[in-house]
Amino acid sequence: MPHIPHLEALIDPIANDLTSGAAEIALRAITVFQTVLTESRNLPPAEIKENMQAAAKAIVNAQPAMAPLFHLGNQVLLAIDKANSAEEIQEASDRALSEFDARLCKSADMIADHVYKLIPPGELVFAYSFSTTVVSSLLHARSKGKFFRAVCTESRPSMEGRKLATMLADGGLEVLHTFDSAMGLILPSCRVAFMGADSVGQPGIVNKVGSWILSLACRELNIPLYVLCGTEKFVLGEQVFEFERHERAGGEVWVDSPKGVRVLNRQFELIPFSQVAGVVTEFGILGQADIDKHIGTMEVHDALKLETSAF
Amino acid sequence: MPHIPHLEALIDPIANDLTSGAAEIALRAITVFQTVLTESRNLPPAEIKENMQAAAKAIVNAQPAMAPLFHLGNQVLLAIDKANSAEEIQEASDRALSEFDARLCKSADMIADHVYKLIPPGELVFAYSFSTTVVSSLLHARSKGKFFRAVCTESRPSMEGRKLATMLADGGLEVLHTFDSAMGLILPSCRVAFMGADSVGQPGIVNKVGSWILSLACRELNIPLYVLCGTEKFVLGEQVFEFERHERAGGEVWVDSPKGVRVLNRQFELIPFSQVAGVVTEFGILGQADIDKHIGTMEVHDALKLETSAF
Repeated sequence: MPHIPHLEALIDPIANDLTSGAAEIALRAITVFQTVLTESRNLPPAEIKENMQAAAKAIVNAQPAMAPLFHLGNQVLLAIDKANSAEEIQEASDRALSEFDARLCKSADMIADHVYKLIPPGELVFAYSFSTTVVSSLLHARSKGKFFRAVCTESRPSMEGRKLATMLADGGLEVLHTFDSAMGLILPSCRVAFMGADSVGQPGIVNKVGSWILSLACRELNIPLYVLCGTEKFVLGEQVFEFERHERAGGEVWVDSPKGVRVLNRQFELIPFSQVAGVVTEFGILGQADIDKHIGTMEVHDALKLETSAF
Repeated sequence: MPHIPHLEALIDPIANDLTSGAAEIALRAITVFQTVLTESRNLPPAEIKENMQAAAKAIVNAQPAMAPLFHLGNQVLLAIDKANSAEEIQEASDRALSEFDARLCKSADMIADHVYKLIPPGELVFAYSFSTTVVSSLLHARSKGKFFRAVCTESRPSMEGRKLATMLADGGLEVLHTFDSAMGLILPSCRVAFMGADSVGQPGIVNKVGSWILSLACRELNIPLYVLCGTEKFVLGEQVFEFERHERAGGEVWVDSPKGVRVLNRQFELIPFSQVAGVVTEFGILGQADIDKHIGTMEVHDALKLETSAF
């Protein structure tokens, strides 16, 4: 049982963040682990580990679709497993957290280098939902002197597409913006499309709702749609379906819906690999076979094996 | 030149109505013609006709995508052409207006009879945007004892999908509602989809933005998508592209968009006939060849020939 009195209060901002990308939220989760460690430092080592496991499970459950949160917790739990004292736990955890942080930054840099080559100069580039990887890749290309314009849509109901538009415009890109269902009007003028991912597993890519119709429209119009995400988004087996647990209150879509109307508010959906041009990772553009191979090498801590979903 | 002092004030409610179906707005336009006639009754016949032509052009320009407004004006102008006195004009106009009104009601009834057979009992039925024809057809089926549930999405930016949801729920249907980009999540559970149309012409169907991605999704999932509209929506030749003039202020999509972001707010798009299962009219389910044939018989008053677009 968790010994952290205000774990919920620490996790809530993560659970309720609907506009940040997965990489951004992972950085926030690092702070949660650091806080839990600090508050547990006078407990016996076994209880510190229990608290860290409780924190990892709670973080994963707060955003079940966001694979980096899983990997962050997994790395920390695997790292502290063999530690024998509070000091060793602290040291192992600090190292795991800072390695994870460094990995995220390095992934983003390497992905940006690959994306640079995928942007045709002078053209319109479509970007969907919000992803720090997409933002950093497009702004990197712009800062390296490539001229292009970006198009994005609002991403109902959380409107994180406005955040994307604002950050791209702040970074010096000219941005066209419209509502989601108008993608069919603007995509024919675009030459390439990018989206992030919340997780990538054997059946496909999990991302914000709307990605599936985007992938259909891109296929129909012969526009390559690339998924930008580091391998920290890759997940094992059934875990890719965890996003299905992520249903939110209908009131976020329609505050005062009338009697007789049930409002659905799901956040994520699955896009088959066959509907995207490729997954751009720190190791280059991967197809389904490469992804399967990478997933085959992943090690998962017992505390995070899929019984978590009963939790 | 128009002699009607407040024509603009009469037309404005039509131009600014973004949530009503075309048939509903046509009924409102009938009142405009009646008002213009009443206010012109002491003028010489030629000037009354001029005023009616000005009113017809202004109404068509207020909602260039809405074919029934065109046909209403066209019917009235053709009807009053041979009238020689104020009384004859009044009589011809009254007859044309009430014939048009009766035609709209009769179309809706006959379409509802066809739609009844297309609804599989006990299933989920998808409906997009807002169309009085869709509403009356679904409620007619329900009142004839067919049980089914309806699904609709909000239809950004005007949210006329909420009006659809409300009217269907008021009529006793159980309604599921979600945001537009989530159509990919809910469509796989639906067995048939319906939408209205603003106009139908040789290249395809013009309807609210989002209809194109809906048609792609339906095709991908093998869900028949039917367009419900009377032949009063059929238009001649190039006129089907008039909807492209209908661009609205970006502020309706994003009130306080930041510098560097241009917001696009188009209302309509074209869906090729190949992407729908058929057009359900008062004459039954028509394909492209039947529609071409029907359009070939249409007569257009000189005042409404396409020079209107320069107006």
